[in-house]
Amino acid sequence: MQSKAEGVLLIIGGNEDKTGECHILRTFIEKAGGREAKIAVLTTATQLPEEVGIEYKMVFEWLGAEVVDIIHVADRTRAFDQHLADHFSMYTGVFFTGGDQLRLTSILGGSTIDQAIKQTFAHGGVIAGTSAGASVMSHTMIVGGDSSETPKKSTISMAEGMGLIDKVVIDQHFAQRGRINRLLAVVAQNPNVIGVGVDEDTALLVEASGKCHVVGSQTVTILDGRQIVHSNISDSSLFDPLAITNVTLHILPDGFGYDLHTRRPYVSHK
Amino acid sequence: MQSKAEGVLLIIGGNEDKTGECHILRTFIEKAGGREAKIAVLTTATQLPEEVGIEYKMVFEWLGAEVVDIIHVADRTRAFDQHLADHFSMYTGVFFTGGDQLRLTSILGGSTIDQAIKQTFAHGGVIAGTSAGASVMSHTMIVGGDSSETPKKSTISMAEGMGLIDKVVIDQHFAQRGRINRLLAVVAQNPNVIGVGVDEDTALLVEASGKCHVVGSQTVTILDGRQIVHSNISDSSLFDPLAITNVTLHILPDGFGYDLHTRRPYVSHK
Repeated sequence: MQSKAEGVLLIIGGNEDKTGECHILRTFIEKAGGREAKIAVLTTATQLPEEVGIEYKMVFEWLGAEVVDIIHVADRTRAFDQHLADHFSMYTGVFFTGGDQLRLTSILGGSTIDQAIKQTFAHGGVIAGTSAGASVMSHTMIVGGDSSETPKKSTISMAEGMGLIDKVVIDQHFAQRGRINRLLAVVAQNPNVIGVGVDEDTALLVEASGKCHVVGSQTVTILDGRQIVHSNISDSSLFDPLAITNVTLHILPDGFGYDLHTRRPYVSHK
Repeated sequence: MQSKAEGVLLIIGGNEDKTGECHILRTFIEKAGGREAKIAVLTTATQLPEEVGIEYKMVFEWLGAEVVDIIHVADRTRAFDQHLADHFSMYTGVFFTGGDQLRLTSILGGSTIDQAIKQTFAHGGVIAGTSAGASVMSHTMIVGGDSSETPKKSTISMAEGMGLIDKVVIDQHFAQRGRINRLLAVVAQNPNVIGVGVDEDTALLVEASGKCHVVGSQTVTILDGRQIVHSNISDSSLFDPLAITNVTLHILPDGFGYDLHTRRPYVSHK
């Protein structure tokens, strides 16, 4: 129900502002040390690492970061590069670009770079990720699922994520792609997890204490299934519609917070 | 919180099966008297009254109805036709086709046909409506709103409905068109109303007692805002994202019921 270590997570729903006030990316640089921020932009998730990497490097430098390195780990060999892994100890922030969450986990999972990122986090660093880079943070992650459907078992497919945060499952581009039904099916599978749906240009900043703050122009949807009374997920077939009752739902814009321990929203204003 | 009269409502989310088992339309004919059912198919909402009317007439006759009349009230003059209104006393069921809910209310509102339909309902008749014909049943109805957006005040536009059911606002094609956010905004405006989102090929059968049963292949989503703690709807501007906390959400497939008085879902199996 909390991040596993002392660092901060910035879970971004994709399509964050990079040309205006840049509230979300600015928050990332501030949390990572401001003028002393040393940032690794990890482009593993994307098929366009150069374009995407350079775009973030320019924004982060413009926002005042001291160091911004684009790091493209494109295969398992590179993921076990000890020299590169050692280099990670200098970073105060790691940024996962969007792309495909299964690229991130299949290339990095269990590697020395994976360990190095977790070390950065454990030592108080900030791990930010957008879109696929957001989904990958949880222990179990969503890798696919039709969102235009009534909730069904077949709606979702899951995989092991990077495990930077426990008891939470993240979905992104949330309102924009109408993904509430697939996140509801996830929560019905195990109401112990809190469903976190992050809209585009919106982020959830998760502190080590389990306190979260919403940043950005849209909203974060929280689905808390702990009070679920009826659920037919264990005895329904793949294409049966799910029954789920008594889910608690919160829609939180900037200025609101959520406590992952008490499962309560609150007015935050950071 | 209940239907105003002694009749039964069948609120259909659109695109109901007309060629297979026809669970929903069969339920309508059964509730309207089975082999003694006398049905008025009201095509006012649609711009294609002939095609739509004949399709329903064929299905209802195939399902065993004794009488099926297609009634196209296309303007206010016809809506005040006293001879036609008198004729309504024979019907045991009225079926509103889909189309545009504002056509229904702008043509029928306050007319003698409007009164005649409500008389049929008050005398124990069944009023069924699909898509626009479902939305129109509530006292205040949704007439438009972008559903691909984060909830905002600007997301929804409302109008006075036919008022066959109180303290409920209905949305249709619900999961298929990803409409939860606009229904959440409706509930935030006044948590006294229960948001009822009906999927395609799914219906909510509402008895005069306030007990409801889900019929069909998909689900009905209930949004109960009575426990809302935070809501910024009164002080947000049109394009600010809404804050809404502690909404209770139920997803109910066939075999489940909901009590509009106690606001509780239950296992129904009719």
